[in-house]
Amino acid sequence: MHLMKQMQAQNWLIDFRGGTRANMYRVLKTVVATKSPYQEILILDTIGFGRALFLDGIPQSSALDEHIYHEALIHPVLVAHRQPKKVFIVGGGEGATLREVLRHNTVERVVMVDIDDTLVALAREHLGDWHQGAFDDPRVELVHADARGYLEKTSETFDSVIVDATDPLEGGPAALLFTSEFFKLAKSRLNPGGTFGMQAEATDIGVCEAHASIIKTLKQCFKSVFSYQAMVTFFGLPWGFAVASDEDIAARFTPEVIAATLRERGCTNLKFYDVESHQHMFALPKYVREAIEDPNVGMIIRDDRVLVVE
Amino acid sequence: MHLMKQMQAQNWLIDFRGGTRANMYRVLKTVVATKSPYQEILILDTIGFGRALFLDGIPQSSALDEHIYHEALIHPVLVAHRQPKKVFIVGGGEGATLREVLRHNTVERVVMVDIDDTLVALAREHLGDWHQGAFDDPRVELVHADARGYLEKTSETFDSVIVDATDPLEGGPAALLFTSEFFKLAKSRLNPGGTFGMQAEATDIGVCEAHASIIKTLKQCFKSVFSYQAMVTFFGLPWGFAVASDEDIAARFTPEVIAATLRERGCTNLKFYDVESHQHMFALPKYVREAIEDPNVGMIIRDDRVLVVE
Amino acid sequence: MHLMKQMQAQNWLIDFRGGTRANMYRVLKTVVATKSPYQEILILDTIGFGRALFLDGIPQSSALDEHIYHEALIHPVLVAHRQPKKVFIVGGGEGATLREVLRHNTVERVVMVDIDDTLVALAREHLGDWHQGAFDDPRVELVHADARGYLEKTSETFDSVIVDATDPLEGGPAALLFTSEFFKLAKSRLNPGGTFGMQAEATDIGVCEAHASIIKTLKQCFKSVFSYQAMVTFFGLPWGFAVASDEDIAARFTPEVIAATLRERGCTNLKFYDVESHQHMFALPKYVREAIEDPNVGMIIRDDRVLVVE
Amino acid sequence: MHLMKQMQAQNWLIDFRGGTRANMYRVLKTVVATKSPYQEILILDTIGFGRALFLDGIPQSSALDEHIYHEALIHPVLVAHRQPKKVFIVGGGEGATLREVLRHNTVERVVMVDIDDTLVALAREHLGDWHQGAFDDPRVELVHADARGYLEKTSETFDSVIVDATDPLEGGPAALLFTSEFFKLAKSRLNPGGTFGMQAEATDIGVCEAHASIIKTLKQCFKSVFSYQAMVTFFGLPWGFAVASDEDIAARFTPEVIAATLRERGCTNLKFYDVESHQHMFALPKYVREAIEDPNVGMIIRDDRVLVVE
Repeated sequence: MHLMKQMQAQNWLIDFRGGTRANMYRVLKTVVATKSPYQEILILDTIGFGRALFLDGIPQSSALDEHIYHEALIHPVLVAHRQPKKVFIVGGGEGATLREVLRHNTVERVVMVDIDDTLVALAREHLGDWHQGAFDDPRVELVHADARGYLEKTSETFDSVIVDATDPLEGGPAALLFTSEFFKLAKSRLNPGGTFGMQAEATDIGVCEAHASIIKTLKQCFKSVFSYQAMVTFFGLPWGFAVASDEDIAARFTPEVIAATLRERGCTNLKFYDVESHQHMFALPKYVREAIEDPNVGMIIRDDRVLVVE
Repeated sequence: MHLMKQMQAQNWLIDFRGGTRANMYRVLKTVVATKSPYQEILILDTIGFGRALFLDGIPQSSALDEHIYHEALIHPVLVAHRQPKKVFIVGGGEGATLREVLRHNTVERVVMVDIDDTLVALAREHLGDWHQGAFDDPRVELVHADARGYLEKTSETFDSVIVDATDPLEGGPAALLFTSEFFKLAKSRLNPGGTFGMQAEATDIGVCEAHASIIKTLKQCFKSVFSYQAMVTFFGLPWGFAVASDEDIAARFTPEVIAATLRERGCTNLKFYDVESHQHMFALPKYVREAIEDPNVGMIIRDDRVLVVE
Repeated sequence: MHLMKQMQAQNWLIDFRGGTRANMYRVLKTVVATKSPYQEILILDTIGFGRALFLDGIPQSSALDEHIYHEALIHPVLVAHRQPKKVFIVGGGEGATLREVLRHNTVERVVMVDIDDTLVALAREHLGDWHQGAFDDPRVELVHADARGYLEKTSETFDSVIVDATDPLEGGPAALLFTSEFFKLAKSRLNPGGTFGMQAEATDIGVCEAHASIIKTLKQCFKSVFSYQAMVTFFGLPWGFAVASDEDIAARFTPEVIAATLRERGCTNLKFYDVESHQHMFALPKYVREAIEDPNVGMIIRDDRVLVVE
Repeated sequence: MHLMKQMQAQNWLIDFRGGTRANMYRVLKTVVATKSPYQEILILDTIGFGRALFLDGIPQSSALDEHIYHEALIHPVLVAHRQPKKVFIVGGGEGATLREVLRHNTVERVVMVDIDDTLVALAREHLGDWHQGAFDDPRVELVHADARGYLEKTSETFDSVIVDATDPLEGGPAALLFTSEFFKLAKSRLNPGGTFGMQAEATDIGVCEAHASIIKTLKQCFKSVFSYQAMVTFFGLPWGFAVASDEDIAARFTPEVIAATLRERGCTNLKFYDVESHQHMFALPKYVREAIEDPNVGMIIRDDRVLVVE
């Protein structure tokens, strides 16, 4: 079926955010509308953002700017490591997180554990620009299981553990990937010098409490923790990330080290991440710093007191 | 792909009406989104209305209540005729108008002329509940051409001519099917005692000027003209129709004649139309009668002064 | 503040109906946005419908077509009575129900009981086109109390009792005005020959179960019950009403009696209601008749099993 | 009238952006809805953003984050100057731009020229948190006139000229404030060492061509030009700014100089701007840098070839 650039029909996907704000996306065509055992999966062709993925009605990534989200998530945590060979990915069903990890030529093995095999199968078929064949890279082992359970059972250790989970929604499966207990588990599977990275919820001025809670909880588990953020236009929001380690990450994040690392690993041709984008992401607006420092904002997240966003 | 009854994603088709009102339809899935040489065609699965057709962004018919629109359009104009054998249909691409015409067992031949063969092919494939195989009835001749041009050239005459056209939009192809010249052309192709029926635009209290114009123009062309209406929930509006003839239609519309006619023709099992529904449709709210009678409302529609709705 | 006919800002009031459909109203200005002890009250100036009232987010009436709703509610129940002198109104806070009752020159006394004095005060100030001074008519006694409780305690009897209540929402105050027990209470306060009328929920093809339940419940309480409906464009829906009595109402609803009654009572100049509009409203579409007759649709409403609409 | 935190009525202001995206703002109350000779003015109370101003339907600023926009606009251009005493402001009707300028204790005189006296009067009355009395500061001269015309006629010169104009819409008054001719005029009214600052349109990944055009045009007029940006949550977008001078601005933008300047001028207690926020804003994402450097993106803006955004 031929797709028109502009339809007279006004088909909008409305992303209501807690009933007080909403983003509207103009839909050209529903590519996939289904439900896996874990979540509702919607793949749309939109005007402006191109192909786009929504899980449980929440925007995940779009053709226009998925590279910003995925490069922001991956390159800091791998640059922070001196020589990442073995990487563990939690979630990341679209395959784009995997794609970015594989760009680092030091990487010899990636274990990716995403619980939702339906999502991964649909991504393989319909999100080719995301994974770009990454699932077929011989360095990759793909597992469909609960990632936390997998980590608990495995005796394997890694240089970097990266969490690309969905939001911790009420009653959803991701909540136990944002707790102090999980962070300690992940740390226990890190080799010496290992780094931990994760998506860490929105950092916009209206709603950055969840981000502050994540950073505070990480700081109880790791010696060195960095909060950073990147604007994701598809979300209409700046999005927070975190990188953590027991090593001194700061030394890895000087302009010279970043530039040299990207050069050595064959990552000089990234679409978003480079030295200046790094500085942009890691120099935080005052309100984010204040939220993180304010003892009255956020909480330490535990298995018995999980973080819930709406 | 399995369709969910209720998605968390809020995908809405918004039908803006002149910028002052809008209807929102909840979309489950895009079945077809394409453009023929004549119009944009959208077939959706919705919650509440089931499958639904939109042309140029404007709601046409839904599984929930297409029978109301199509029965309202067809049965009065055929009951108004003593024995309709040959019927001419303008438009009606979904095939449901055809379906209702064929219910009358007096009908021996139907010529249906719809300009858009893409639409008809998509209706055959995706709107089976609409046509119910009517296109394959041996009494039917289906032609893809401009209906007005076809009528001008043909020497054939008919017992009933029925216009199931889209709205006369700015720059659209339907405008010349609503003019005095076209009504006279249609009349010239009617056998003695012939009847003419058409969809005749909205009759809601805010916007019934177009309906009044159509009725006034018909009255200049036919001796007997009836305005009537039915609520089409899918439109959120009552919709107007007209039936016209040079014969005295009123005599055909007594409860006794309607009941007898439906019985004789094997049309007693209709979902909407019967004697009481007829009375409901033909007893008009005061504001519709006033609009039709008011010399300051509406106009006589001519080829050089066409009706345009937005 | 000068009001523009058309603003570039697109301010829409969205009326979501059970999550599957929605109507959008274009807002020019918020006149009132407040909360009484009983409900949320919103008075807006809209494009297309003019001034409009919403209670708990649900459209109540608009300047464009409130006369249709209020004339449809009042005139049948008063015409059904041979000489209504004393009338009891439940609800009707806008004052337009009162306005229509007072048109009948037989009326000597009206007791109107609306629980929400905030709403009535705001209607007096901002809905002048609705009440047109009716609250100040010397025949009127206005009481702010629970109408059912009032009826239980009063020893006064009436010729007509009319219920103009809001929808029976989950947890709302109107639910106990739609039960068999209430209908019997109302009947016990009727003089011989008395008539009972009420708004009786939507009658559109998608959702007419509530209407069927009301009619069925009334039929258990009164000997003669009529269901009828009118299109309310502001709702985007046909709206149901009921009139009931132990007298034979049918005899009052012949064209001759209606015409004579309106003439005698000085009601010949109504905007909507006359003999033909009456026929339009009382000749029901087949699906409404079928819903009322179908033993599997709806239920008998009781105090311990209330009707709830969403 | 008491304002509720959450209304059941869903009143949304929809900001459609070129028909392909839209932001929805939840409205509690219309405070002002009017039209000046120059533009449509809407002041709303919203949920989430608090009070908010829209001009011609386009979001301008909200209580939640107006300080980010206004601090981002003002402090770099004043820090870039060694001792700004006389400042000229184009536009800035809300008074918040003025408020930020006055924080610098070097400032002795500000001339603010906003064409729309209606807007300024409404801002004085309804946007007290924006101006905080700035209009009454004895250092301020407020003029209602066309700012470009004013600059052409005046013989006065300034240390900083700051443009806080609305978007250059089709047919709107702001277009001639974004051209090479205007930039040269502004420069001619600068004292030696003078600085020029302006809002410079969106910098999101989908739409940063306008920003690139502004920067390119400035570079033809000034020796030193900086592009920078800040996320404005109310817009759902990162917003671009520019600061320009014939002096070497870079020397003023070292962490040490910024910190010292803010300290000396009594600006250490800003809500958003400080050394790290400065670095955040001035380290640009790669796609913004690429757009600015790409000879095929954008154009040199001239009076006879104006910039138009939609």
